Amino acid sequence: MKNIVIIGGGTGTSTLLSGLRQFPTNNSVIVSTADDGGSTGKLRAELGVLPPGDIRQCLVGLSYTDQPLRDLFSYRFDRGSLAGHNVGNIILAALEKQIGNPEEAIKLVAKMLNVRGQVVPITLFPTKLTAILQNGKKIIGEHNIDDAKTDRPSIKELKLTPSGPANPRALRLIESADVIVFGPGDLFTSTMPNLLVRGVKEAIAKSKAKKVMIANIMTKRGQTDKFAVSDCVRVLQKHLGKKLDTVIVNTARPPTNILKLYKKEKADLMNADIPAIEKLGAKVMAASLLSDKPAEKIPGDIIKRSLLRHDSEKLAKIIYKLVS
Amino acid sequence: MKNIVIIGGGTGTSTLLSGLRQFPTNNSVIVSTADDGGSTGKLRAELGVLPPGDIRQCLVGLSYTDQPLRDLFSYRFDRGSLAGHNVGNIILAALEKQIGNPEEAIKLVAKMLNVRGQVVPITLFPTKLTAILQNGKKIIGEHNIDDAKTDRPSIKELKLTPSGPANPRALRLIESADVIVFGPGDLFTSTMPNLLVRGVKEAIAKSKAKKVMIANIMTKRGQTDKFAVSDCVRVLQKHLGKKLDTVIVNTARPPTNILKLYKKEKADLMNADIPAIEKLGAKVMAASLLSDKPAEKIPGDIIKRSLLRHDSEKLAKIIYKLVS
Repeated sequence: MKNIVIIGGGTGTSTLLSGLRQFPTNNSVIVSTADDGGSTGKLRAELGVLPPGDIRQCLVGLSYTDQPLRDLFSYRFDRGSLAGHNVGNIILAALEKQIGNPEEAIKLVAKMLNVRGQVVPITLFPTKLTAILQNGKKIIGEHNIDDAKTDRPSIKELKLTPSGPANPRALRLIESADVIVFGPGDLFTSTMPNLLVRGVKEAIAKSKAKKVMIANIMTKRGQTDKFAVSDCVRVLQKHLGKKLDTVIVNTARPPTNILKLYKKEKADLMNADIPAIEKLGAKVMAASLLSDKPAEKIPGDIIKRSLLRHDSEKLAKIIYKLVS
Repeated sequence: MKNIVIIGGGTGTSTLLSGLRQFPTNNSVIVSTADDGGSTGKLRAELGVLPPGDIRQCLVGLSYTDQPLRDLFSYRFDRGSLAGHNVGNIILAALEKQIGNPEEAIKLVAKMLNVRGQVVPITLFPTKLTAILQNGKKIIGEHNIDDAKTDRPSIKELKLTPSGPANPRALRLIESADVIVFGPGDLFTSTMPNLLVRGVKEAIAKSKAKKVMIANIMTKRGQTDKFAVSDCVRVLQKHLGKKLDTVIVNTARPPTNILKLYKKEKADLMNADIPAIEKLGAKVMAASLLSDKPAEKIPGDIIKRSLLRHDSEKLAKIIYKLVS
């Protein structure tokens, strides 16, 4: 069975995972430990645990148990003293406190949820992300970088503290991968925090895996304003010191009314500038990849989710073909 | 297999359940829905769910899954915004909100924990307990009755609102029981709130089961001050309008240093006045029933638990013999 390793952790990763479920592949996710927003940020700050949110989301994505149990792990309280807290996050945090080892906690949840595949945090401790903008200003904390309330200069440099050591299991996964997938997901707050960990860049360089980027559909305010897909490729390749093998881009145009909603949040369609990407040395696979299903609403979930999603089956099919 | 139905729900019930694990009996617990203290009370008030604490404790008591998973359901946060909250309680509350049905929520947790036997709430909605004291004063709320901070007159009358309807599954369990066990546990806040529910008294009267009371070892301030075991029997028999078949009493004297600790909380050894009990019509089974193991400390648990426990194996053996 081919080893597919996805580097990311956010909602985009979950989408891809749900598509990969129907293919006979060995799926692993490497998850950033820099998240510090929402329920996750609160648990991390109060209890000193690994940020559980992305780990939980990926475990649910790889789960083959009954729907009510998967829903439980996604349930978010909407009132009372637990308002905003997610049950899966609470469970992961409690297990880590109880067992004293985040990987054992993840293993136990994986067993509860009948997970096929692996969810591996990139470090075994929480990390802190800092962005230095073009004007020299520092933005400290993943959720502050993620949630730009006003226009701001672009990101010049990202720092992660502590920057290592990497989780040895994550490095081994990378080295034995047949394909490494970057994205879809926020470039600077989901993908890059993994790559900044000491040893990861080297492990990717050593790996014989195909390196694939799934381009985001939309830009994100404060992160990728005015970016074309080639700009994302450039950021990744510069950091990795390696060329990507393949870049998967969407060619379908989203409905105008949805683009208008994104516009309100200062997000635009990301230009799929195929010739520019090819000039950077990567092969482009272009296809109509937009999901025509509305983003799934989870009971009790009050978090605003992306309205536009990749079609998870189409994405997974492309990835599967790359390794077959 | 013989049907053993325990009416109660608190720590005493859990003790008995852990002893019954090794006998080939069909064990069910009927649990009061009047609890309104601690994490349970908070979840109930904020979310409108059935008080989860006793249900959760009994499910863990009947669970045949791995220890780490059982420990997870007993884990209590000791810091941060979740301080005082128990994970099992949070899971039950979330499932009830999500599914919209407390019994389905209990079933799902029972499946997660590989539970053998049944945990059945006496009503399918939260109830409120009120005690009217000899001086006419009302104490409203189970935890206020339970947690007497000063001396107070004895309880003249207990009221439950709403008083029904009973959970039909609880009534069916009672009717098909081979033995119904009352206690060990707080007479007025664990046992009686079940018996006050409309239809329960009648179901017990109709049942051919042996009616057995396991006497508490100690009195409890504000509930059973100066009570002998015969006083508890009298309270039960008066309410049920039926004689108990058997009363199980402990004859071992606890260590003096432990009695001194109880004395500080105004609790005394409960007098096992065997002749008086027999005069009330019940057969007495007297034995040395004190556990010599210290009460189990659950990781993360900050709740003060009884220092004195029944020996769960000895108790279970007596119950088993009664139906064999």
